[in-house]
Parts: sequence; structure tokens; C-alpha cells
Amino acid sequence: MNGWTGKMLRVDLSAGSTSIEKIDEEILKKYLGGRGLGTYLVYTEVPPDTDPLGEENILAFCTGAMTGVNVPTGGRSSLSTLSPLTGTIFDSNTGSQFGVRLRWAGFDALVIKGISPTPVWLEITAEGATIHPANELWGKEIPDTISTLKERGTSTVSIGPAGENKVLFASIADEKGRSYGRGGVGAIMGAKNLKALRAKGKEKPGIANKDIFDFVNYEASKMVTASPRTSDALPEFGSSVLVNIMNEYGVFPSRNFQRGEFETAYKISGEKLKEDYLVRRGACWGCPIGCKRVTKTKDEKGEGPEYESIYALGSSLDIDDFETIVSANYLCNRLGMDTISCGATIACAMELEERGKLDTELSFGRADLLLKTIEDIAYRRGLGDEIAEGSKRLSERYDMPEVAMQVKGLEFPAYDPRGMQGQGLLYATSNRGACHLRGNMLGPELLGAPKMLDRHASSGKAGVLIVMQHTNAVIDSIGMCKFVNYAIGDDFFARFLTSVSGIKYETQDLQLAGERIWNLERLYNLRAGFTQKDDNLPPRFTEEPLKEGGSAGHVVHLDEMLTEYYRFRSWSADGIPSEKKIIALGLDTLEMEQEDA
Amino acid sequence: MNGWTGKMLRVDLSAGSTSIEKIDEEILKKYLGGRGLGTYLVYTEVPPDTDPLGEENILAFCTGAMTGVNVPTGGRSSLSTLSPLTGTIFDSNTGSQFGVRLRWAGFDALVIKGISPTPVWLEITAEGATIHPANELWGKEIPDTISTLKERGTSTVSIGPAGENKVLFASIADEKGRSYGRGGVGAIMGAKNLKALRAKGKEKPGIANKDIFDFVNYEASKMVTASPRTSDALPEFGSSVLVNIMNEYGVFPSRNFQRGEFETAYKISGEKLKEDYLVRRGACWGCPIGCKRVTKTKDEKGEGPEYESIYALGSSLDIDDFETIVSANYLCNRLGMDTISCGATIACAMELEERGKLDTELSFGRADLLLKTIEDIAYRRGLGDEIAEGSKRLSERYDMPEVAMQVKGLEFPAYDPRGMQGQGLLYATSNRGACHLRGNMLGPELLGAPKMLDRHASSGKAGVLIVMQHTNAVIDSIGMCKFVNYAIGDDFFARFLTSVSGIKYETQDLQLAGERIWNLERLYNLRAGFTQKDDNLPPRFTEEPLKEGGSAGHVVHLDEMLTEYYRFRSWSADGIPSEKKIIALGLDTLEMEQEDA
Repeated sequence: MNGWTGKMLRVDLSAGSTSIEKIDEEILKKYLGGRGLGTYLVYTEVPPDTDPLGEENILAFCTGAMTGVNVPTGGRSSLSTLSPLTGTIFDSNTGSQFGVRLRWAGFDALVIKGISPTPVWLEITAEGATIHPANELWGKEIPDTISTLKERGTSTVSIGPAGENKVLFASIADEKGRSYGRGGVGAIMGAKNLKALRAKGKEKPGIANKDIFDFVNYEASKMVTASPRTSDALPEFGSSVLVNIMNEYGVFPSRNFQRGEFETAYKISGEKLKEDYLVRRGACWGCPIGCKRVTKTKDEKGEGPEYESIYALGSSLDIDDFETIVSANYLCNRLGMDTISCGATIACAMELEERGKLDTELSFGRADLLLKTIEDIAYRRGLGDEIAEGSKRLSERYDMPEVAMQVKGLEFPAYDPRGMQGQGLLYATSNRGACHLRGNMLGPELLGAPKMLDRHASSGKAGVLIVMQHTNAVIDSIGMCKFVNYAIGDDFFARFLTSVSGIKYETQDLQLAGERIWNLERLYNLRAGFTQKDDNLPPRFTEEPLKEGGSAGHVVHLDEMLTEYYRFRSWSADGIPSEKKIIALGLDTLEMEQEDA
Repeated sequence: MNGWTGKMLRVDLSAGSTSIEKIDEEILKKYLGGRGLGTYLVYTEVPPDTDPLGEENILAFCTGAMTGVNVPTGGRSSLSTLSPLTGTIFDSNTGSQFGVRLRWAGFDALVIKGISPTPVWLEITAEGATIHPANELWGKEIPDTISTLKERGTSTVSIGPAGENKVLFASIADEKGRSYGRGGVGAIMGAKNLKALRAKGKEKPGIANKDIFDFVNYEASKMVTASPRTSDALPEFGSSVLVNIMNEYGVFPSRNFQRGEFETAYKISGEKLKEDYLVRRGACWGCPIGCKRVTKTKDEKGEGPEYESIYALGSSLDIDDFETIVSANYLCNRLGMDTISCGATIACAMELEERGKLDTELSFGRADLLLKTIEDIAYRRGLGDEIAEGSKRLSERYDMPEVAMQVKGLEFPAYDPRGMQGQGLLYATSNRGACHLRGNMLGPELLGAPKMLDRHASSGKAGVLIVMQHTNAVIDSIGMCKFVNYAIGDDFFARFLTSVSGIKYETQDLQLAGERIWNLERLYNLRAGFTQKDDNLPPRFTEEPLKEGGSAGHVVHLDEMLTEYYRFRSWSADGIPSEKKIIALGLDTLEMEQEDA
């Protein structure tokens, strides 16, 4: 089948069985693949009352129609599941080559359920999956694990000690630290006794209309080469190009979002990273942008840190020692933890300390304790064991939930919404919690991409955000990277998908697919018990104006934006999709299947 | 002064005097030049109860900071006045080289008032203006006039018989038909006894920061060369590339908007134009896109027709004889009339005939009568004399105002708003009437540029439209072309203006400037007696669903969009800008000066 392989690889770790199934073509057309397909699979196969760390939860690794296709940024894939951190439906997206190899092995999806009685790792080839014992890998850090499994023509992702110890923000990563990062997907692998996955595949996906594809690809490549963001800013400085810019706007969080600027941001900026740590640029498979940073400290070599990690492991902790931040980033990657949630939960602990709730040495600015704290978390030692549960649980344990900078249990990324109203609405409404990758308003509110909006205005933001949410759902579903959207418009995604699949997609069809995915995620969360009350922000953002910096004096006007948002989505005032909308999206016929255990 | 010349040339035709004045730098910074400066001049100098064809009205030809600067599409200029057709403040924009030469002569503005006792033409050089007798030019068509005045290193615009005869949609054009086209600006020149203007100038504008300018220009040129719309669609087919696309969507008007599709659209498409009439591409000064069509019929050579002219002189009249349409376009250009209002008012007459209100041979489909009718209008003969007053007055004369496809007296361009909700809101709210160039929703609603919105949704459109309205006000004010915005984002306009003027403009500063201009236009119209009731559409669009084609079944949901629009603009429910908004835009200190006659 052009566009998709139409095949799904199933693994039941409890039974020790594997099989290959066909995927209904209509499902692929409708949900596109990647995140869309994963959402469909979780919705239909995982009842919301499932224990995320139990046998019944699934890990649905899904590739998109463009994953492994030689287009700019065609190297991304997605992992959908029920998150142990948030309790929401969750998808995590990576640029690791694992997804590419999975696709080349011939699979649109790899769905893993069950729990293995002993540690195992999984080998995936065009023939199917093989379960191997992993007793000797258990306990190893990620790079060690992967170097043990290394073989030409393969790509491996693994969990580290954090995943084994079910840290609720444990990640799954490759040797470079490119991760299915957020939501504690690594803890699920740990709970399943699954240490690593290695994919081997060589078969490039079919292209329905090669001539048209080549032309669209040529035009897209021209755009990527021409756009200043994809040909200059990102290749030159990576995502951390944002540090100085965001700090200027007063939305670069420090001290657990108690401040929106960081005096010494320049010490931990993309410019500084280039000066002191950069070895060379890196790129995900198929990516001409190359925003990755191959870096080194005096002791170690690795990738990153990304912009978000610099905030989480740096400014938010009041730490400006770049060597420590870079090392902390490496350490998180080796141990297998999401840098954002890890750092943000440490920040939460630091604020609990500051407010006298927590008796610990770990206070703002203590760079000297950072690396040890990260290890304590991964190995669940002492206070680390409490931090390993994420900021929501940690703050509730100390009876001060307001210091957890999270929505629906997911910790905030590095943009203070008080200086970006639409971003505030985004955090409140994202189906996986406080996320910047489910419709980032950075473009329209700060960079003017694709159009500049008044960042302090709340009126009219909902309409724009909804379109961004749909576009991002589409990009996550077809297997491309959001950064390419700075260079090519949504019409290119439709043109690519059309030429690859042979099925006519207009830009508007993709928006509709994005809306379908978004609403399906919402329906899942509603069944899981989330309500309109969970579309919220920590009171800090709606009640405490920033005191200094480029966004001083502002709070988020969430309520009015939310009212507009529900109305524009044809949802009720309680945030429930109308019957009419559900039918229009073709979601009325979807049944949540009862799994047989 | 970098960025602007800071000089204004004033001509009083009653007194026969001319002078050169300084323009306050703060005004230029705030209103940018071009349309913004013209709006300021009309607002402060022309009381709204002025007779548009009387002595007190001014013609304010304004150049922008980028007019005549060698950047992609830096060849545009603007003309602001009080329109005799609409009674609103009005600006008309052109790619004629006249504006470039005016700028090179050293002027940001040329302001003409008064009435000459005898026909004159105006010569503009760096030294100032000279008034010359034009008795021998009077009565001539535009190309004849201009060839008489032709001189190396100059550019001339003129009126034709239509302007002399005060046809309310008479234009001012150069020999190629590139016009200050809409709103009857040619009638004002006619009323002033001013036949033509010739500008001679050689001094290129100063650039504050050449290195940065060169870099921005390099990046912008890369984008124009890379973007499929500016490097492929527009160069290849011109604006008439839209005929087949719009017809497909069911928004290509025929029979005076009684239908949204035209069966034989393919006969009058951009593809057909290329096949049968194209001689070569043409381009305005400084434009790498080159959307102009140098064409020829068996009898004549000229430019065009543009997409809008093909609708107005073709499909809307139920005429698919392309030779007649091309000839009619040439004829309008020679006689000096806006093709849109001319054709649309003929369509109005045809519908009056169809409905039995008007006893005439001129009925839908009568291609054989078109050229004669156009001449009759320009020379105000018979029914032509009535059509020369525009559709609003014509339809009211026959007591059937609902068949005039106009808003605030300005006739519709070629996009049926029943298939584009946001476009409907645009027509209703544009300060100069039913205009597609004051915030076109074609991009977001049909082309996916910069993002694809659901064209049939009304929710959320207001927010997007407002941003588009501001961007377009900015582009009109700095002297660039809206087509370039398909390739470069708003940030480029800020970067260009910054490098040329040496004054730091962020993208958001330009949005604010656009908002300032928009609100000032609004305030003028309110003082002129327009009210919220004039933000309306002909009942056809809100009450009669299209019966066939790609937008069948739809009407415009104007009221709900309008409510949202006023709210987002911080205007009252009556459409009046709030005091707070007026202050925020710095418009509270602006005084409408009483002119001394």
C-alpha cells in the first residue's frame, strides 16, 4: 500500500507471543498514522481505568506516512499510550532513527502489551518481532545498553535505570539522547520488563506518484533552504537560540516560574553553547535543518542541551553554571529521564524548601547538588524517590499543590504564559497537559510566524490556537517535524501526503483530520474522568503578575479565552464535544473495545 | 532623513501655487508613509462634509519608505482622498512607476487641492511642481495623453475621458493601465481640471544600515525565489490563475452574484490567457514576481486583464467571449475607469433589466454591447450616464437597491463571500467598502496562506481578519505589494523598515501601526456619518444561499462575526472605537483641522 505499509506488529509480553496484523486502510486514511493512529489504538484498546503500569496498557509505536521517506524532516515517529504521569492519553514524539527503521521494517505500528516475567528486549525485523532475554542489560544506562545491542543497519532505543525504577517521567531514548521523552513512557517499558527495542529494516516506503512527489520535494527543499529560521537560526544555534530571545520578552522562566527573566541568561544561551561546547551540528534522519548540537564538556561528549533543558535544569533552578547544566542534560539522557519534568520537579522541590515545607539542602541555586539529585531520582533514593513521582504528586504530598508548575500532571516547558496569552490557553487545553508541542503559540505570539499577533491580547487567540493544534496533530501523525513548518506551509503536508499515498488530500482535509485526532484525545480524557476543571493553570499564572522583565504586570486571562475556545470548537460550556461535532468528525461510530485480559 | 525624505510637495490649483513643506518625523514614524500618511493627511485636512469633487478635497499621493527602494516589489505607492463614489476616506494603490519617480524626486507626499480654472497638467521634479496648461490634452485617452508628455526618465499618470466626465469610478493610470484604480479618484482629478502628472526623479532613497539591508534583501529574495506562489503560479499565469481555482470552490461570481460558478470559466482562465493572448510577462518596478500580462488581441496590445477584470467584464455579465473581455479591459484602461466598478455596475444594470426595472437591450450575455456600453459610460451617454454613477446610485434610482453588489458604495471584487465567511466580514468592515485588498481572506480561507482555516466557519474569523487588515495597511503604507507577503512574512517588513530608516521596528510595532491606520480611517468614516449599519452586505449574501457549485447552500453569517469583530477591536457594539483604544493608539491628540478655504 502506498503511503502506509498497512501492517501492524503486535507483541504480547505476558504471553511471549508476537503477530503481524493488517490495519484497515480506512483507519489510516482517517487518522493518517503516527499520533493519529496511536490515538485511535489507545482509544479503542485501552479502557481509561486501566493501570498505566499494568498489563493492559499498550505502547503503540506508530510511524507516519512520511516517516523514513526522504523529505525534509521525514524522520519522526510517535508513541501513544496511557500515561502514568498524567493519566491522560499521551503521545510522545521523537526524531530517533528507531522510527525510521521500524517503518523500513514494514510497519505502521508496533503495539506492545502485557508484562514479561523477566527482563527482555525486542528485536524487530521485516519478519516480525523476536523477544530476547535482557537480564544482562538490566541496570545499565542507555548508551551502554545500546552499544551492547549495536549492529549495522539497526537502530535501538532503550530505557535506563529511571525507566526500570518506574520514575514517572522516565523516557525512552537512543544513544544520542533523542527520546520519546515525556509522560513517563519509560516507566511503562520498565513496568513491562522491557529494556530495549532494536529495529532493522531496509525497505523504503512506496511512493504513489513519483513525479509529483519529486516536484513537491524540490519545492519544499527550496523553502527550507530559503527560510531564515530553517537555514540560519536553527542550524546555527539550535533550539537554544531561544534563550536570549525569550529572556528579552520576559517569558524565560526562572526560580520555578516565580520570575520571567534570568539575569545571567546570556551565560546559558545558544550563542554561549556554540562558543564553549559545540563540536558540530547534528541532524535527525532526513533533516536538512540540523538543529541538534553535538557537544562536549571536559569529561563527556553528547547531544544538547535543548532550549527546554536549559530552562528546566538551569534557569528554573536558578543555576547558571553551564557546565553543570550540560552535564545534567547528559546524565538525564544516560539515565533515561525527561529533562523538562525532571528539572521542573526539582524546581518544585526547591520552592517547597524555600517555603519551609521541605527540610532539605536542595535549594535554588545549588548547582553543586544537581547531578547527585538527578541520580537520586533515577535510583529513587531519599528525596529523589519523591521527586520521581512528578511535581503534582510531590506538591500534594507537602500540601502545597500551587507550587507545582503543571497542568494535568505534566510539567511546564520554558515559556511563561503570562507574556503569551495564547500559550496559556494552549497549556490549559492540551490533551497531554502543559505542552508546547501540541500547538505552540511561540510562532504567532513572539516570532511572527506565520503571522504576528499581540501576545498580550486574549481576544481571538482561541481561533488561532485551534488551527495550530490541528496542524501540529497532523505533523505528528504524518511523521515530520514541527520545525519544518517554519519554512513550508500546511499545503505542503497535503501535497506530500497526496503524492506519497495517491489519495487526494487538500489542506483542509488535513485540518479536519487534526480536529478529529484532537477531539478523540479529548473524548478519551473525558472518559478517564477529566473535566472542564482540568483545563486550568496553576494559580501563579492567573493571579500573580510577573514583577519584572518584558512581561511585567501581566497574568493569563484564561477564563475568557476558554469560553471562546469551547465555543469555537463546538464544545459545550463544560468542554464536552457536541454530538453534532462528534458525528461530523466520524467519531460517533467508534467503540471503545473491552480488552480481553 | 533615512527611510523617508521628510518632504511634501503641495499644489493649490485654485491659487496656481506650489510649495515644499517638511513633514514632522514623528508623523512618518507613526503612520509609516503611503496609505498611513495619506490617511493622516485626509483626516487632518479634509472635513468629512467636504464635497469630494469640490475645491477642498485633496489628492494625497504618498510614497512609502520602501517605494523606489530596490527590494522585491518596492514599487508601489498610494493615493488618499475623500471618495466621490463612497463618501468614505479612500486610498488607492498602484504599481505604476509614477510613485517611484515621485519618491526619487524627493517627496514622501504630493498633496493637491483646489480647482484649476482651465485644464492643466503637473510636472514634478526635485525642484518642485510646475503647472502647465493642458488644453490640448483634454479629451484624449490615457495612452495618447501620456505619449504626448513622454520624456526620458519620467513617469506619467493621467485621466482619460471618464475622469474628465467625472465618472464616479474613473481611475488614474499610466500608459500600461497600471492604475490608482478604485473609488473614483480619476473623477476628482477631472473635477480639479487636472489631466496628468509627470514625475521626474533620480535620487535613490537613503539606506540607514546598508549591510543589514543587503542581508535582509538577500534573504527576502531567496524566499521570493523559493515560494511556489511567487516563483511559479503568479509568474506563470498572473492573477488570473485564480479563475479556475475560484470557480472550483464555487466562489467565482456570475450574473451579478446570482451564481457562484461559471460553466465556461475555463474559456476565460489564466491558462487560456497564456495560450491565446500572452506576449510576455510584465513586472512593476523592482518586482521579481512579474504577475503582469503583456497581451494582445488581433487589433490591439496592452496589459491584463487581471483576475478581477475577467470577473467584472466577463463572468458577472455572463460573457465568456475572451476577446471581448480583453478588449473591454483595454478600453477601460484607455478611457480611465476602474474595471471592477465599471463591470459590476453594468452587471447591476443587467439585473435591473432582467427584473423588468430597466427597459434596455443591455441584458446578461450581450457581449456585442459591452464595448459600446463602456464608451457610453466614459462619455456619459444615455444609460451610460446613469451607470457612471456606480451601482448604489443606479439601483436606488430604479428603486431596487438590493441588486447593487456593493458595500458603502464600492462594488464587489471577484470572490463570493458565501463560500468564504471571513471574506464576507472583510467586505462589511473594510473602510473603503467591498474591497479584497484591505485584508483579503483568500489566503487563509482558500489557499492555506499562511494557515488554512475552514472557509465555512464563522467562529474565530474576526481575529484572523483583523491581523490581515493590519498587515495590509502596513504593506500599503511602506510601499510594497501584497503578493510578496505570500513569500515573506511580516517580520521582513519590520526588518526592511528598520534597516532603511535606522529606527527599530519590531513586527508587533507594525501591527500596531496598522491598527492605528485602521482605526483612524474608521474614525473618519464615523464623523462622515457612517454607522454600524453600514458594516453590512447586500441581502443576497446573508439571505439567499448559493444554489449550485462548490459553495452551494451557504450564506454569510455576518451578525455573529461582526459582534466578535467589534469586541476583538475593542469597539462598542455600535462599532465605535473605545476611548481606551483611541488613547492606546495615540489618536486622542489628533485634531481634525479646519481648512482655510
